[in-house]
Amino acid sequence: MSTSLFLEQQSISTDAKLAAEVSKVWQAVGENNPLIQCMTNTVVQPITANILLAAGCAPAMVDVAGEAEIFAKIANAVLINLGTIAPHQIESMPIAAKAANQAGVVWVLDPVAIGALPIRTELAHKLLQMSPTAVRGNASEIMALAGGVGGRGVDATASVAQANQAALTVATESKTVVAVSGEIDLITDGNRSIVCANGHQLMTKVTGVGCALGAFLGAYLASWPDKLIAAAAAHAVYGIAGEKAAEHAAGPGSFSVNFLDELAKLTADEIIAEAKLSWVEVESTR
Amino acid sequence: MSTSLFLEQQSISTDAKLAAEVSKVWQAVGENNPLIQCMTNTVVQPITANILLAAGCAPAMVDVAGEAEIFAKIANAVLINLGTIAPHQIESMPIAAKAANQAGVVWVLDPVAIGALPIRTELAHKLLQMSPTAVRGNASEIMALAGGVGGRGVDATASVAQANQAALTVATESKTVVAVSGEIDLITDGNRSIVCANGHQLMTKVTGVGCALGAFLGAYLASWPDKLIAAAAAHAVYGIAGEKAAEHAAGPGSFSVNFLDELAKLTADEIIAEAKLSWVEVESTR
Amino acid sequence: MSTSLFLEQQSISTDAKLAAEVSKVWQAVGENNPLIQCMTNTVVQPITANILLAAGCAPAMVDVAGEAEIFAKIANAVLINLGTIAPHQIESMPIAAKAANQAGVVWVLDPVAIGALPIRTELAHKLLQMSPTAVRGNASEIMALAGGVGGRGVDATASVAQANQAALTVATESKTVVAVSGEIDLITDGNRSIVCANGHQLMTKVTGVGCALGAFLGAYLASWPDKLIAAAAAHAVYGIAGEKAAEHAAGPGSFSVNFLDELAKLTADEIIAEAKLSWVEVESTR
Repeated sequence: MSTSLFLEQQSISTDAKLAAEVSKVWQAVGENNPLIQCMTNTVVQPITANILLAAGCAPAMVDVAGEAEIFAKIANAVLINLGTIAPHQIESMPIAAKAANQAGVVWVLDPVAIGALPIRTELAHKLLQMSPTAVRGNASEIMALAGGVGGRGVDATASVAQANQAALTVATESKTVVAVSGEIDLITDGNRSIVCANGHQLMTKVTGVGCALGAFLGAYLASWPDKLIAAAAAHAVYGIAGEKAAEHAAGPGSFSVNFLDELAKLTADEIIAEAKLSWVEVESTR
Repeated sequence: MSTSLFLEQQSISTDAKLAAEVSKVWQAVGENNPLIQCMTNTVVQPITANILLAAGCAPAMVDVAGEAEIFAKIANAVLINLGTIAPHQIESMPIAAKAANQAGVVWVLDPVAIGALPIRTELAHKLLQMSPTAVRGNASEIMALAGGVGGRGVDATASVAQANQAALTVATESKTVVAVSGEIDLITDGNRSIVCANGHQLMTKVTGVGCALGAFLGAYLASWPDKLIAAAAAHAVYGIAGEKAAEHAAGPGSFSVNFLDELAKLTADEIIAEAKLSWVEVESTR
Repeated sequence: MSTSLFLEQQSISTDAKLAAEVSKVWQAVGENNPLIQCMTNTVVQPITANILLAAGCAPAMVDVAGEAEIFAKIANAVLINLGTIAPHQIESMPIAAKAANQAGVVWVLDPVAIGALPIRTELAHKLLQMSPTAVRGNASEIMALAGGVGGRGVDATASVAQANQAALTVATESKTVVAVSGEIDLITDGNRSIVCANGHQLMTKVTGVGCALGAFLGAYLASWPDKLIAAAAAHAVYGIAGEKAAEHAAGPGSFSVNFLDELAKLTADEIIAEAKLSWVEVESTR
């Protein structure tokens, strides 16, 4: 049986218990006001900071060697996103990851556009060996991280279902939570898997919405003990805000504005009512 | 006769055949979904990516040496914009231009704020010798590229009409299409010249609208064989979206939001109806 | 008597003469169209440029060595913001400050997140010794600049009142105007002090609104001889635009859009009517 067929045929019937738990994670994030160190690409720094602020978190873009290490021990979570790796980031990212590990700070790896591009691919594999708390990316990126071929940049040319085996492999071998973004997101820790059907197509039409999810995910991982549930919550809440933002959007410009407004306005009741999450049995085909 | 007087007196009566052709170029871009590598300044990276996404293109900001060369052969077009030349860009930009030439990939040079500033002026002249498919800038920048004096940064202190001779010189000597942005845009390949009267003054009140036009132009050059027509189409479509965005704008903030929405909503009929393009006879005064 | 109690008990009764003068400073900025060189962090470059454009100023983000020095003599004001100090900025910032001093160009130091982070703290103290025209920051940053302990990044964990003594110390020792941002802003040159109660809480929910105030402040310093009044005017006008933007905002996304629109629409009458400025007697407790 093909795993891709399995996932595509899957109908997402919401798990009410999961939805209730997710709303509690969301509440914990709001009360925690986590400080998120974002070592990320320059394209998405503004929207990443704005999304964190709208969600009640505190962003800090500290990425130079000599500061990144110190800050990784102060922060509640660290995001390492390889989108526009400047020379100073190539040096400082592994140092920050090591410091986060030493201090017990959660960190997220987002291997943007690896596969076709050698410098970031090597860096991504180096960072993966340092056991990130979670890895997020599109299907092409997760497949490239597991050793497959890459896409043509930030586009996902592969489907989430195709990345299922890669996600399980990365999660199991690196003892991390893997989140694959797509029309239906897959979140797995290798043993347990959740799918999330929240989100809207306009989220792919605004630069940085995907990348900022890595920072948002960091805030959730920092605020809840079960990292798989935390990651699923981040994806559901983010997707719900996207759905609500799209309702009154006239295009990608107004969607982007609405998305920030909606993130700041969300309520626990809306999350419980709108979350589209479900446990799935995803067998490895290996 | 002064060329500046010539252009200022010119009334733009729309060429209906040109408008129809432009709508076909626009359609080709939408069907092509071109991947645009943007080696650009950090100020305008977000709006550049968002404008490309709104217009149905795929942006990728790959600019480090070791990756820029590889990506320039994967991309459909490369933008090289000198707005905030970081040290790693000074190294990687000529490498990417060479790779694009080798792979037959179109590329655009935007010599932002050259003239007064020596590092970027030298880099711009080096890149110009590598025969970009097109060069775009304001009047001051094009005049500085042709050897004249520069402005005070990204402001155009000279008029498009004053830059007429410089545009012809650069186009002829470097076998490239030159586009001079202003109230009335001039697009020339040295033999044929088109003026475009689309656009709105609010486009100069949002950072990056000018710079992002370089990336947008790349998408058009990648999608149509006649590069002069492609460049004229890019300017007309961009200007039409600006005009429509300004209709309901309360200022530069809402204009910026509307501009993205309008780019995503444009139709072929609107382009045919609104394009203000005309062939012009522009004699060299040399 | 605790200085913190002193400021918190203070009720801001608007000084009508001050409000009238502030409206004249605002008018001078609009007529001056000042060119502001922003050596700032990559997160806030877009909003900084957009705020300057909306306010009738011309932004230029020139920060590489070899260009920063030249541009600092062309510009009307220079902003040096330490938010994401890239290696090339660490080199070019003191060079630009020196060039600005030599050319008599005003410059602003914004010591973002110093205290906890060693590289920027050392750089901030080096720059402070070069006598910036003004220093702006939150309470934690000004206290760290005066030799105290720092906060956890860009968050202000200390109150403006707590920073009162630090502000006086920095202003007196470095012969500069010090502006401490908070719910009530304190602006002092060591001899004279003004408090400003304009502003809105949503201004802290959009990244870069604080950092862009440094650039905005540069425009005001460049356009008025009395630097204390100029700084107070910048804070009042900025805060009024924030208040008006918040009136119709549904959250931080729409606030950000409205803020640019309002900055562009402000009138002298509105400024006179809305300015909440007052002279204060602030005794040093030293």
